[in-house]
Amino acid sequence: MEMASLSEGLTQILIPAAALVGIFFALIQWYLVSKVRVSNESGSGGYNDRLIEEEEAEEGVDSLEVSIKCAEIQNAISVGATSFLFTQYKYLSVFMGVFSIIIFLFLGSVKGFSTKSEPCTYNTGNVCKPALANAFFSTIAFLLGAVTSTGSGFLGMKIATYANARTTLEARKGVGKAFITAFRSGAVMGFLLAANGLFVLYVSINLFKLYYGNDWEGLYESITGYGLGGSSMALFGRVGGGIYTKAADVGADLVGKVERNIPEDDPRNPAVIADNVGDNVGDIAGMGSDLFGSYAESSCAALFVASISSFGIGHDYTAMSYPLIVSSMGIVVCLITTLFATDLFEIKGVSEIEPTLKRQLLISTVLMTAGIAVVSFFALPSEFTLYNFGTEKTVKNWYLFFCVAIGLWAGLAIGYTTEYYTSNAYSPVQDVADSCRTGAATNVIFGLALGYKSVIIPIFSIAVAIYVSFSLAAMYGIAVAALGMLSTIATGLAIDAYGPISDNAGGIAEMAGMSHKIRERTDALDAAGNTTAAIGKGFAIGSAALVSLALFGAFVSRAGIKTVDVLTPKVFIGLIVGAMLPYWFSAMTMKSVGSAALKMVEEVRRQFNTIPGLMEGRAKPDYATCVKISTDASLREMIPPGALVMLTPLIAGTLFGVETLAGVLAGSLVSGVQVAISASNTGGAWDNAKKYIEAGGSEHAKSLGPKGSDAHKAAVIGDTVGDPLKDTSGPSLNILIKLMAVESLVFAPFFAAHGGLLFKLL
Amino acid sequence: MEMASLSEGLTQILIPAAALVGIFFALIQWYLVSKVRVSNESGSGGYNDRLIEEEEAEEGVDSLEVSIKCAEIQNAISVGATSFLFTQYKYLSVFMGVFSIIIFLFLGSVKGFSTKSEPCTYNTGNVCKPALANAFFSTIAFLLGAVTSTGSGFLGMKIATYANARTTLEARKGVGKAFITAFRSGAVMGFLLAANGLFVLYVSINLFKLYYGNDWEGLYESITGYGLGGSSMALFGRVGGGIYTKAADVGADLVGKVERNIPEDDPRNPAVIADNVGDNVGDIAGMGSDLFGSYAESSCAALFVASISSFGIGHDYTAMSYPLIVSSMGIVVCLITTLFATDLFEIKGVSEIEPTLKRQLLISTVLMTAGIAVVSFFALPSEFTLYNFGTEKTVKNWYLFFCVAIGLWAGLAIGYTTEYYTSNAYSPVQDVADSCRTGAATNVIFGLALGYKSVIIPIFSIAVAIYVSFSLAAMYGIAVAALGMLSTIATGLAIDAYGPISDNAGGIAEMAGMSHKIRERTDALDAAGNTTAAIGKGFAIGSAALVSLALFGAFVSRAGIKTVDVLTPKVFIGLIVGAMLPYWFSAMTMKSVGSAALKMVEEVRRQFNTIPGLMEGRAKPDYATCVKISTDASLREMIPPGALVMLTPLIAGTLFGVETLAGVLAGSLVSGVQVAISASNTGGAWDNAKKYIEAGGSEHAKSLGPKGSDAHKAAVIGDTVGDPLKDTSGPSLNILIKLMAVESLVFAPFFAAHGGLLFKLL
Repeated sequence: MEMASLSEGLTQILIPAAALVGIFFALIQWYLVSKVRVSNESGSGGYNDRLIEEEEAEEGVDSLEVSIKCAEIQNAISVGATSFLFTQYKYLSVFMGVFSIIIFLFLGSVKGFSTKSEPCTYNTGNVCKPALANAFFSTIAFLLGAVTSTGSGFLGMKIATYANARTTLEARKGVGKAFITAFRSGAVMGFLLAANGLFVLYVSINLFKLYYGNDWEGLYESITGYGLGGSSMALFGRVGGGIYTKAADVGADLVGKVERNIPEDDPRNPAVIADNVGDNVGDIAGMGSDLFGSYAESSCAALFVASISSFGIGHDYTAMSYPLIVSSMGIVVCLITTLFATDLFEIKGVSEIEPTLKRQLLISTVLMTAGIAVVSFFALPSEFTLYNFGTEKTVKNWYLFFCVAIGLWAGLAIGYTTEYYTSNAYSPVQDVADSCRTGAATNVIFGLALGYKSVIIPIFSIAVAIYVSFSLAAMYGIAVAALGMLSTIATGLAIDAYGPISDNAGGIAEMAGMSHKIRERTDALDAAGNTTAAIGKGFAIGSAALVSLALFGAFVSRAGIKTVDVLTPKVFIGLIVGAMLPYWFSAMTMKSVGSAALKMVEEVRRQFNTIPGLMEGRAKPDYATCVKISTDASLREMIPPGALVMLTPLIAGTLFGVETLAGVLAGSLVSGVQVAISASNTGGAWDNAKKYIEAGGSEHAKSLGPKGSDAHKAAVIGDTVGDPLKDTSGPSLNILIKLMAVESLVFAPFFAAHGGLLFKLL
Repeated sequence: MEMASLSEGLTQILIPAAALVGIFFALIQWYLVSKVRVSNESGSGGYNDRLIEEEEAEEGVDSLEVSIKCAEIQNAISVGATSFLFTQYKYLSVFMGVFSIIIFLFLGSVKGFSTKSEPCTYNTGNVCKPALANAFFSTIAFLLGAVTSTGSGFLGMKIATYANARTTLEARKGVGKAFITAFRSGAVMGFLLAANGLFVLYVSINLFKLYYGNDWEGLYESITGYGLGGSSMALFGRVGGGIYTKAADVGADLVGKVERNIPEDDPRNPAVIADNVGDNVGDIAGMGSDLFGSYAESSCAALFVASISSFGIGHDYTAMSYPLIVSSMGIVVCLITTLFATDLFEIKGVSEIEPTLKRQLLISTVLMTAGIAVVSFFALPSEFTLYNFGTEKTVKNWYLFFCVAIGLWAGLAIGYTTEYYTSNAYSPVQDVADSCRTGAATNVIFGLALGYKSVIIPIFSIAVAIYVSFSLAAMYGIAVAALGMLSTIATGLAIDAYGPISDNAGGIAEMAGMSHKIRERTDALDAAGNTTAAIGKGFAIGSAALVSLALFGAFVSRAGIKTVDVLTPKVFIGLIVGAMLPYWFSAMTMKSVGSAALKMVEEVRRQFNTIPGLMEGRAKPDYATCVKISTDASLREMIPPGALVMLTPLIAGTLFGVETLAGVLAGSLVSGVQVAISASNTGGAWDNAKKYIEAGGSEHAKSLGPKGSDAHKAAVIGDTVGDPLKDTSGPSLNILIKLMAVESLVFAPFFAAHGGLLFKLL
């Protein structure tokens, strides 16, 4: 059989090299950010503040005292976020332990814990390792994925809390400087995550190979545990973090902005620290884990399908590693792209922020398209066969170029559409703002309608990507299309993490009592950040859809079913119940945020009423109690939705069998993607409609404002409703659909062997 | 082959007899309602008011003047509603004409307009009528369905506007009398609709048979046009009526309740007549057409599948007519059930209203279960075979009993769940009311979460019904399960129509300036009405789901495809795009309501500002302009969503072929049902949360109220947001999913012959 022109030896060098380059680049960015000095010396970890260099500040308005305040606040946020994450990790380690045992027992029981080698399923004639070994290595891979995911989220949070005060301080020098600081910090997170994900996966494969040798079926089947580990941590990160941040945010806004009429992020508000901590644990750590999970899963899905195709059976290491090589190329491309924002051009005014971020997306997509062409021609044989649900499909290497490229460009289309619907530079958000004239009700109606409408183009983009890649290269095509969308993840995450960092920077400016001018700059950064956060969520959900489909295909292949026919009752009931799950899940998460926010409101009211001098700024609020309310709520409330997601595949597969489970996966995928996109865009649009009125940048906006007008009050209500939609329930749905799919894939051997108990009994 | 034990001759007598009994019973109820006299003699149509019998009134509070006012208002509402419907019908007749031509041309082209008879597809060896004849008769059936649907809606509107003032006047004698008047009027509509639908279908089949003779395949294929006609009128009825009513309602509330602080339905509000007209054209005429459509479609789907099964091939007329016989039994059962509410028991207090309505559901379900058993044993042979996507399935008559019964009981489960989530007697709505403490934002968050949560049990009920009926009797099982759910439609509609009638009665009481006590009684009737309206919508969507699936199965059978495999790109892209359609559709309808409401707000504000003495009640507002705004908006805005629904199957089928279209149908079904249920329950819950605070019936409710408190203002915002959700976009989605399915079925021969152009070209 023909092999790839790139030699195995070179592949073994290039992949880890790219990963290390990515890590090195991230460290450089970190170093550049650290050159911005923050006062309040303590600096044990290297990221904990230096004395502010007053001579650099162009504006003398903010005194040294203010800068010290910045450092204090940054410290409070960092300590709060770290302490929350460590508490969360304590719970998660228990979960990881229990779930590891479940994986091992379920998969071990497939062949009754036999230690005998078995004939291979696909590579017929050869001998494969025992199912018990697969159970063991799947468990190990699960733990590796979980740890890497957690680490990615934690590192992201660390750099974000490290960067927020620095962004505030740089804002004194101008919006361009502040932008670069925030964006570089985002890049640190993006590159660390992409490179670590690749590196750990690469190393794991090579280590597992020491045991598996020529049994690539078993090897890549076990590796899928990596994706499961990544995504299950992301579930709790997203849900727990999402509840944390929105309970604090909604609670703070309801009393502060609505009742007491004090500005957002005012230091007199007892929930303000919890709110800022929330941005870091929810939007940063949660998002990091989520995208890491998508990346790991799409790689695993592609690798698994490849392992039962001619690459795997013919032992073509380079072609097998195609997904990893695509990701390696992505790191290099994103590195070049980043330089365009940080070094080649400089932002001079507020109006350039959004175009610059958009340009990042475009540049990375164009460059990556060329990169994929190179990779596809060198890393793949010119012709090969792919496994396609029991049949074989002959594929040429340039087919795969199209698969990856269409995923990549679909991502761009989703990003641009999201920007159009959530940025206040365009008519959709302006219409929503305009509807505030007649009150909160019309605002909510228009906002919901906007969210519904915003799903149209993304869904058509995803559908075209699926059709092309599916037709060209079956399930492998879908998996690499997902990888294509995620290949520029480093840039995507940089853009995305930029949002919460700017949000925090604004919060710190307000709390430190900095001048109105600084606050205006950070607000402008933040408004762009709302849009980029929505774009990031768009990417996350788009890639989640493709990844889930790829995992679904891999699951079906692994479970040995040849068709998933809607015209059978088993499949159809799965489909309709699956389509219901996103609603059930959202009901839980929305209600959790609502209830926790009510508690927060009571506490904030209590403090305003009982602490003398708080409103006048003479007394300090009790921040810690509010942090505790958010922490407790998020840890308690993440359990039911988590259980829903983790248990559904186990129950459906065990009781109803693989066909019903396949229906559930397809149903939750096609329904969940709509709910997720509309929820996150609705929320983003409301937030920016409010900002549009506040900024008063046009005649129209001025006619609606200023802050405190009836229209603005209506806009605040929309914004508050949007909070749990865009930051809790919406983004968590990505994980719902991915995680159920990857879990099904990992447990597929068990379901195929022992599943469908209920139907067997009847 | 074994035949049914009921003879053909007796079947030919029993079906029309049941239909006529139903019509007769409706007329009796109408007569009883007409005994309540309304003043302002004019009475040309027999339903246009008599002089009020003052001696009957127990309370002298309301003078003759007030009663005359009642009559005037009733007249204004009736005239407004009639004039709107006639304007709408003008547009619809153009649509009917154009679409008739499309049907004829598309279906005629299947065999190139040949007039030659063809060998039958399923009844092999026999000769069937030419495709051109099927095209012609399908067109006729379409027109019959359209006319019957329109007529059902119109009659419903007539009786509702006839009954509203009578209910108000009866409220003076007590809540029990008023309840009976409202309920009887609902029953008139329910029985007329159920009986007419059955009668027209029965007559059409017998007339078509004169031409078709032994070609039952062609006969029942053509009859499916009846369902298409019914549902396409319902589409415009629901969407147009929904936009009309909510534009008026939202507009009236935003200025009246929120800005001017005058009560709901205050005669000083210029939009008040439009609002009350809207209840009749949207909730009554639209709902009537919708449920008629479901009934016609499920009958057609069952008949079509039967015609290609052993019933049709063996020409067993009684067994073929099983769906019609089930409906006949339903009319009899509902007749008995109605007596329980109107004659056997009398309502004495407000607290008995909801339990009585609930009991109606239970009684009809229990009686009907027995009825189905009788029908299944006498009208079916003990064993027969059903067509099952290319194979044959042997079925026993008691299987079908279970299919129909499970549909029926699933309907009850949906009804009871809906009641639980939307009635303010239970904790879900009370929690939503409680969340108003912290403002509108938490109210909206809790309301959305409630709606999401309320889909869980209905979806499981539908899933169980589908699994059981599908497993027992393939697609025929699904079709008769849908019929089972709709078999008690007369009672269901009576309960449902009761809602808007009571709502109008309250409006009339307010406008006529009747005493506070009367208004309290009508409010209590109305609160129960909100819940029953939600129950009605629950039934409508539940049955729509089953009907669509049955139509989907019939379409797939007719198009000659054997599997709809999710694992093929053509199907999957259909699935994901189909799941998106409910969002696109809702975006259109919500936005339409929002925009029309904004216009209404401006007009109402203009009138308050420019008409001197309006606020003081010295001048009359210009009701007609508001009516015109609603009319124009609804006629203009119903076109885009209508086009989306009507064109999607044509485009998908013609360009992408039957597999993609099958995917679209399945996707829109499983996604749309969730959106529809959650939208209508969210809206119902918000409405009743507001009423809960207003009524102040418990300590808890009192702590939130009274009217005008901050919590109440927040509740009003939720109520307003819920209006388009529960009365426009939510219920229209039933029609989206049904109509696309029945349209696909009717056009299936064309798609099978000429569809998939785009893929053929590539």
